[in-house]
Amino acid sequence: MTTLNSRQWQGRFERLRSNKLFEMVVVSIILLSALVIGVKTYALPETVTQVIIALDWAITVFFLVEITVRLLAEPDKKRFFRSGWNVFDTLIVVVSLIPIEDSELALVGRLVRIFRVLRMVSIIPELRTLLNSLLAALPKLGYVSLMMFIIFYIYAAVGTTFFADINPGLWGDISISMLTLFRIMTFEDWTDIMYETMAVYGLSWAFYLSFIFLSAFAFLNMIIGIVVNGLEEEHQRQARADAEAAGEPDIATLQAEIASLRELLEERLPPAEQRVA
Amino acid sequence: MTTLNSRQWQGRFERLRSNKLFEMVVVSIILLSALVIGVKTYALPETVTQVIIALDWAITVFFLVEITVRLLAEPDKKRFFRSGWNVFDTLIVVVSLIPIEDSELALVGRLVRIFRVLRMVSIIPELRTLLNSLLAALPKLGYVSLMMFIIFYIYAAVGTTFFADINPGLWGDISISMLTLFRIMTFEDWTDIMYETMAVYGLSWAFYLSFIFLSAFAFLNMIIGIVVNGLEEEHQRQARADAEAAGEPDIATLQAEIASLRELLEERLPPAEQRVA
Amino acid sequence: MTTLNSRQWQGRFERLRSNKLFEMVVVSIILLSALVIGVKTYALPETVTQVIIALDWAITVFFLVEITVRLLAEPDKKRFFRSGWNVFDTLIVVVSLIPIEDSELALVGRLVRIFRVLRMVSIIPELRTLLNSLLAALPKLGYVSLMMFIIFYIYAAVGTTFFADINPGLWGDISISMLTLFRIMTFEDWTDIMYETMAVYGLSWAFYLSFIFLSAFAFLNMIIGIVVNGLEEEHQRQARADAEAAGEPDIATLQAEIASLRELLEERLPPAEQRVA
Amino acid sequence: MTTLNSRQWQGRFERLRSNKLFEMVVVSIILLSALVIGVKTYALPETVTQVIIALDWAITVFFLVEITVRLLAEPDKKRFFRSGWNVFDTLIVVVSLIPIEDSELALVGRLVRIFRVLRMVSIIPELRTLLNSLLAALPKLGYVSLMMFIIFYIYAAVGTTFFADINPGLWGDISISMLTLFRIMTFEDWTDIMYETMAVYGLSWAFYLSFIFLSAFAFLNMIIGIVVNGLEEEHQRQARADAEAAGEPDIATLQAEIASLRELLEERLPPAEQRVA
Repeated sequence: MTTLNSRQWQGRFERLRSNKLFEMVVVSIILLSALVIGVKTYALPETVTQVIIALDWAITVFFLVEITVRLLAEPDKKRFFRSGWNVFDTLIVVVSLIPIEDSELALVGRLVRIFRVLRMVSIIPELRTLLNSLLAALPKLGYVSLMMFIIFYIYAAVGTTFFADINPGLWGDISISMLTLFRIMTFEDWTDIMYETMAVYGLSWAFYLSFIFLSAFAFLNMIIGIVVNGLEEEHQRQARADAEAAGEPDIATLQAEIASLRELLEERLPPAEQRVA
Repeated sequence: MTTLNSRQWQGRFERLRSNKLFEMVVVSIILLSALVIGVKTYALPETVTQVIIALDWAITVFFLVEITVRLLAEPDKKRFFRSGWNVFDTLIVVVSLIPIEDSELALVGRLVRIFRVLRMVSIIPELRTLLNSLLAALPKLGYVSLMMFIIFYIYAAVGTTFFADINPGLWGDISISMLTLFRIMTFEDWTDIMYETMAVYGLSWAFYLSFIFLSAFAFLNMIIGIVVNGLEEEHQRQARADAEAAGEPDIATLQAEIASLRELLEERLPPAEQRVA
Repeated sequence: MTTLNSRQWQGRFERLRSNKLFEMVVVSIILLSALVIGVKTYALPETVTQVIIALDWAITVFFLVEITVRLLAEPDKKRFFRSGWNVFDTLIVVVSLIPIEDSELALVGRLVRIFRVLRMVSIIPELRTLLNSLLAALPKLGYVSLMMFIIFYIYAAVGTTFFADINPGLWGDISISMLTLFRIMTFEDWTDIMYETMAVYGLSWAFYLSFIFLSAFAFLNMIIGIVVNGLEEEHQRQARADAEAAGEPDIATLQAEIASLRELLEERLPPAEQRVA
Repeated sequence: MTTLNSRQWQGRFERLRSNKLFEMVVVSIILLSALVIGVKTYALPETVTQVIIALDWAITVFFLVEITVRLLAEPDKKRFFRSGWNVFDTLIVVVSLIPIEDSELALVGRLVRIFRVLRMVSIIPELRTLLNSLLAALPKLGYVSLMMFIIFYIYAAVGTTFFADINPGLWGDISISMLTLFRIMTFEDWTDIMYETMAVYGLSWAFYLSFIFLSAFAFLNMIIGIVVNGLEEEHQRQARADAEAAGEPDIATLQAEIASLRELLEERLPPAEQRVA
């Protein structure tokens, strides 16, 4: 009897979760929470701050209710936490609930409230698809990224070896040098850095130019790889869609029909000698 | 009789509007108005200013006449104002006619005269097509733009939380922070901003680098989306054009012909037993 | 007899012009002239300067001889000057020959000597093809360029109207403003310009951001247009090459064969009633 | 007997070289050597420096052993040194072995140790393929690069002629000018350079704008060339893969089948007069 009862409850929560109105309320509350985060960054009169704090707690409670509904709506509780987004949502809600007084941890509380905006991605399917496609593109970039890292590492090591004494703020150790190289890759005041080292090592322009060419070339290769990949997928998707939608005959169909024509001929036109007979 | 008269008038205006010479005169006057706007920005002797003011009024009057001709040439007056470009043209002319003395409103008058140059787009069909294709590309960017906005919003909120005390001019509130992030996305003196916050939070380079990677990646996705889309459309247009122009037979035609061949065979070659009979 | 003689001479010059060794000597002399131009920009001892001046005259004389050979090698003298490159080469040589003492004109003489390096393009066919393909791409950009110019013009007029008093060096008149806008399009210290005007007009960030988006979008459209065009041409070239090279049968051939099969059938299998008769 | 013995040894080394564990150890040691290089750039206590020096020698010895194994594993010793990567590896190891005291040469020793990281590329096949594809793309860029160089050279010569007296640090001689032009191409503080020369030559903006347009156009052409090329190759690869994998009949097969159908018909349906006979 209780099992049936729990089943009934689960069915009710499932209907609630799939309800269009419920979904729209959730999206609105996420938008409201984003607005609250934005408003909090301005200097506000005391009364508004009070309202904001109250709203903040109301949003936290609503999110707690919503995640509970989603958990109860799931027939298999274990599967619920297998989805990364569900774990993320739960974590955000749970951490929001912890009352923090300590100024150090207060920052964490504020960060968690900011990350609530990311729930937008977990709620809207199109954004989730977009993020997944971004993440799916990453492993394809594996070896080019490794190559890029090797280029950065070698140039950073060479840069530190030669330029550390000229400007320790830019070339002091290998990690600072890599940051400086990233800056050079974005062309941000890179000539100032170059002129500084050229005053000591006259040929150091070769270091900068070769780095810019190499990194630009590797980067370009990355981009082209992604573009080619994207075009290929689109192309295949299109080709499949064309073939299916139009129901157009392909060459294999033609071949089958010519073969059946042949069979017909062989059956109805026996070899000459047979006919004679 | 009056109805006929009005019909005749409308016909005359329609012929005038479609007249090649009339069109060229309109384009020339728009060019002249653009020139007048340009010349006005230079320091000019009194006499030239007088000429400019006179020219300005002459242009306004000409535009009034032109829009009247276009309105009268339209058989259905209501349809005239359904076109956004016609509304835009009328508005520009009407506002130009209002004599403004007030220095505040004088700026509006000058702006309206500048926007007259946009009439070039409403007159030349190729420019109108180009603008329409730009606008048509926008909705396809919907979800990527939303993703971009979420990235900007979250980073701006985090930036304001941590860096507001370091440099309120850059991170004072969420809107200033978003402007600063846009600046970082254009690589404009972004390292100065980074070095400033790294003096307080040593790990804040991770904030900047992750933002640059995320925004560049989302931006790249946007570009590729547009390119792929553009290529697809071009490809389909081309394929259709090829198929139509050449009148080349496709596989479906071949299939139909093989089928008719089979019918012919079945008709003229009855099954063996039948023939025997 | 003289006619024959001149024909013979022309033939000899033609053989000389087509001679591989002669071509290589010409390319070498152009390279030498480029080298001389480069060397002259350094501070040199008196003796080297003397050598340079002598070399310079020797190169001029050689170019005079070379262009004469090419002119005499041409059977139809009028056609020679129809080629833009020949006119360019002749002009460069003739102006080089004028002895210039005046310091004002001396600059012109130096410029002409620099432009000799462009003869590299006129001599090497691959470079000439490349330049032609670049020039051929320009007209396709016509309307997008016009749109770009209209965007620049309107923003420059608006910028001058509002910001001329804030910084006349950047927004003084419409031409200075267009240069400033080009600078903003290259993201070169654009935020400095923005912060300056935002101190007076708080909302002027909208002016800069909308300009950046519009110009970037128009520019992107330009690029995509060129890329799509390039891919299309490559694609067509490839398709033609495939079809010709492989000599593969196409669907039209199959159709013709099926039709001839039908004819054969109709001829050899008369309608049933006929056969009965 | 000795010959056999040496064969056996070579076989053993070959098995060792192909051993998965051996490969992983080599990659780990290269990673360790990269780590050592990175750690050395930080200020370290004396004891750590001692460990680093010991590790450095251990790595050098391991690399010596590894290269010896690879040399002995090769049946044909001469072929071993035909591979550029083997020569590079051997050189790196040999130079690492030379004990250097001189401070001048010490830098060379440190550089050689940094270049050891490049062995990563020589060991991991995917990185080697990537680098080869980068190098393979270079010759295709030949003429565009030459065009780019001619543009740079002419603008540098013109720039030196006019601007050398304004700022010798930027336009002093042709090589400095080319570096300045490269800086302008990266949009790095290019307006500062322009405003400086515009104070003397009011029209010099035309020099900068034309250079930016020309170099951007040539650069764009380069990029498009690479992209088109990449897409073409991908396309052909795909088309070949499709054709082979699916084993789908093509039009040529259909043609052959229709031809055999015709033969069948001609054989079994002799011309009418024959049948009558």
